[in-house]
Amino acid sequence: MSAAKPIITDWRQFDTIHTITAVVPADSSIAVVWSDGRTSPYERYWLRDNCPCGECYLALTREQAFEIVDAPETLAVASAARDAEGHLEVSWSDGHRSRYEAGWLRANAYDEASRAERRLANPKPVLWGAARAQELPTFEYEAVMRDDHVLLRWLITARDVGLTLIKEVPTQAQSLLAVAQRISHIRETNFGRVFDVASKPNPDSTAYTSFNLPPHTDLPTRELQPGLQFLHCLINDAVGGESIFVDGFAIAEALASESPDDFSTLTRTPMEFWNRDNRTDYRWSAPLISVDAEARLSEIRFANFLRGPIDAAADEMPAIYRALRRFQRMSREPRFRVERRLAPGDMWVFDNRRVLHARRAFDPMSGQRHLQGVYVDRDELRSRIRVLERLLKNP
Amino acid sequence: MSAAKPIITDWRQFDTIHTITAVVPADSSIAVVWSDGRTSPYERYWLRDNCPCGECYLALTREQAFEIVDAPETLAVASAARDAEGHLEVSWSDGHRSRYEAGWLRANAYDEASRAERRLANPKPVLWGAARAQELPTFEYEAVMRDDHVLLRWLITARDVGLTLIKEVPTQAQSLLAVAQRISHIRETNFGRVFDVASKPNPDSTAYTSFNLPPHTDLPTRELQPGLQFLHCLINDAVGGESIFVDGFAIAEALASESPDDFSTLTRTPMEFWNRDNRTDYRWSAPLISVDAEARLSEIRFANFLRGPIDAAADEMPAIYRALRRFQRMSREPRFRVERRLAPGDMWVFDNRRVLHARRAFDPMSGQRHLQGVYVDRDELRSRIRVLERLLKNP
Repeated sequence: MSAAKPIITDWRQFDTIHTITAVVPADSSIAVVWSDGRTSPYERYWLRDNCPCGECYLALTREQAFEIVDAPETLAVASAARDAEGHLEVSWSDGHRSRYEAGWLRANAYDEASRAERRLANPKPVLWGAARAQELPTFEYEAVMRDDHVLLRWLITARDVGLTLIKEVPTQAQSLLAVAQRISHIRETNFGRVFDVASKPNPDSTAYTSFNLPPHTDLPTRELQPGLQFLHCLINDAVGGESIFVDGFAIAEALASESPDDFSTLTRTPMEFWNRDNRTDYRWSAPLISVDAEARLSEIRFANFLRGPIDAAADEMPAIYRALRRFQRMSREPRFRVERRLAPGDMWVFDNRRVLHARRAFDPMSGQRHLQGVYVDRDELRSRIRVLERLLKNP
Repeated sequence: MSAAKPIITDWRQFDTIHTITAVVPADSSIAVVWSDGRTSPYERYWLRDNCPCGECYLALTREQAFEIVDAPETLAVASAARDAEGHLEVSWSDGHRSRYEAGWLRANAYDEASRAERRLANPKPVLWGAARAQELPTFEYEAVMRDDHVLLRWLITARDVGLTLIKEVPTQAQSLLAVAQRISHIRETNFGRVFDVASKPNPDSTAYTSFNLPPHTDLPTRELQPGLQFLHCLINDAVGGESIFVDGFAIAEALASESPDDFSTLTRTPMEFWNRDNRTDYRWSAPLISVDAEARLSEIRFANFLRGPIDAAADEMPAIYRALRRFQRMSREPRFRVERRLAPGDMWVFDNRRVLHARRAFDPMSGQRHLQGVYVDRDELRSRIRVLERLLKNP
């Protein structure tokens, strides 16, 4: 195993764990045989497209200058071999020469075994419910602010568990911003950058009343629901208003096994969600449960109080309501629910595209209740995790 | 035709154009026969779910308080009839009573004819290319700022044509913000709220050099690419740097008819795009061409200089490169290209998820070139259009 130098196409480093034992060129592809016996094919255009030389890539920005459309239709491998340092050298029929680091080549191989390996390495959601309510991950404000290792642990937990609690956040207004900015910028919405959750005289949302709020994700009315939601408790003197969290992925998994037809219905029926404001009119239609191209759960989208009339074929309507009612019923089942009373200084940070949150009604005459919230998108969370992993691994 | 009063579930008004001529109740649904002969079925749970009474909806927020899971499994229609004012009245087996305005009921009917009618009424993209370069929609800054009717025309054009030019925007820095705020708030990114396009000493993107930038969408590295892009020219004294716009939907349509296999390949092959910065690491994989659930074009995602190695099955690689090369070749064809030199005060506003933009190289020693940009998402554009249509129709 030899340590790799950084290459200009990437900020990551690719250690050479498996070495190249043979290079078998053909006209339109090259097969590389590795020290562990794996064989990886590389197609001619794929290789030419990824040439990391200083002519194909701008060293200044690490961005590709070459466009693969400029390779000739007749492009062929003239020669290919392992060089003295163990890397792959290719000469092309048009005279261009390319050199690929063995570590990079292996990390980006697309033979079946390599692709399966990468899929296995993808982060997996850790499901939870009432049975694990006592183990929910808690972090200290000071440590998150000061220590990048704690920060990284918190962010990975937010990504994989989807629900985290930060204790002892200062109870001055706007204090949540400093924590959010440990990740990146804020996702602004028409409710502002920081939104205040308190009962208001002319509420434009049930959130701003003292009524019960059933389990929901925020802003399903938008094409991209906000990723992380921060909810910071400044004051909580009112009677009632307990917070409830439900892992939407845990419900979806249970639904898939207990009632696969209902699961399937909810993954393919678009439901419209829209806001009821006199100055804005956001609407978006998407299934309540989304799965990605590899059939992994990617998103829950649901707020009953924002749902519009369902638009579907008449013969599907009974099955749609059966599935919707079952999902709602499950979201009320004790096995999925974690209930907590927020104390001043507590801040929940949760994946708003997975975790449904709810609030019991409270008595606004019995005392004050004031939370502040912000959103940070999943893109920013993932970017920050990658950079911290890069820095803490190779300081 | 009678004018409808606003109902608490919606801010829109639903005129009664077709009246109810018969109501045919059954146990688990009701059929409504309309004055134009159409028959619309309404399933029991669908109707109960949409009951607009003050008990089911909070008049304060216009949001639903009732949850359909609370309807009994045995819910049945006890009686249903047209009332004296021509609306639908339903009595339920559990004693609840509901009343549905005829105009609302027709607007939300889900019989096949009604659904097809709604699909036809969806806005359609107006495609363009070099042949229509002289007709590209131009608006005056003063009129957009002052007149809501001009504002609405501009926004509908931005939505349907995807490329608009606003003339005579003041050339002070940040002037574009006032125009963007005629729509809503800004979509912030890690490049800031307002980004400056000028050549910089340590560029973190090819955009901030003086090099040629091939046709691309901005930030394909994000799960949600920014919707509208504003590009405002403050100074343009340098030699070169002409702006080029290409309608990605026009290319996709041409590709679908000229080479359907390549089109299909590009709609189902995820390509990874990522940024090469030392402080951020955004990555997202999605097909170059996206179509929605009804097979309409919804998005183009492409920036060659941000593309990562393609991860696909080995036997698909030749077809993927054939399709990618063809798309790139088409994006260079004169028939699709509109080229303009930006003058100070010009501001392009275009759909960044449809229109590819490019820049010729310029000579930074020959003079200054300074543009400013912001993004506003499609959600905000659509919301603003709906509210303006509501206000200007019912002032």
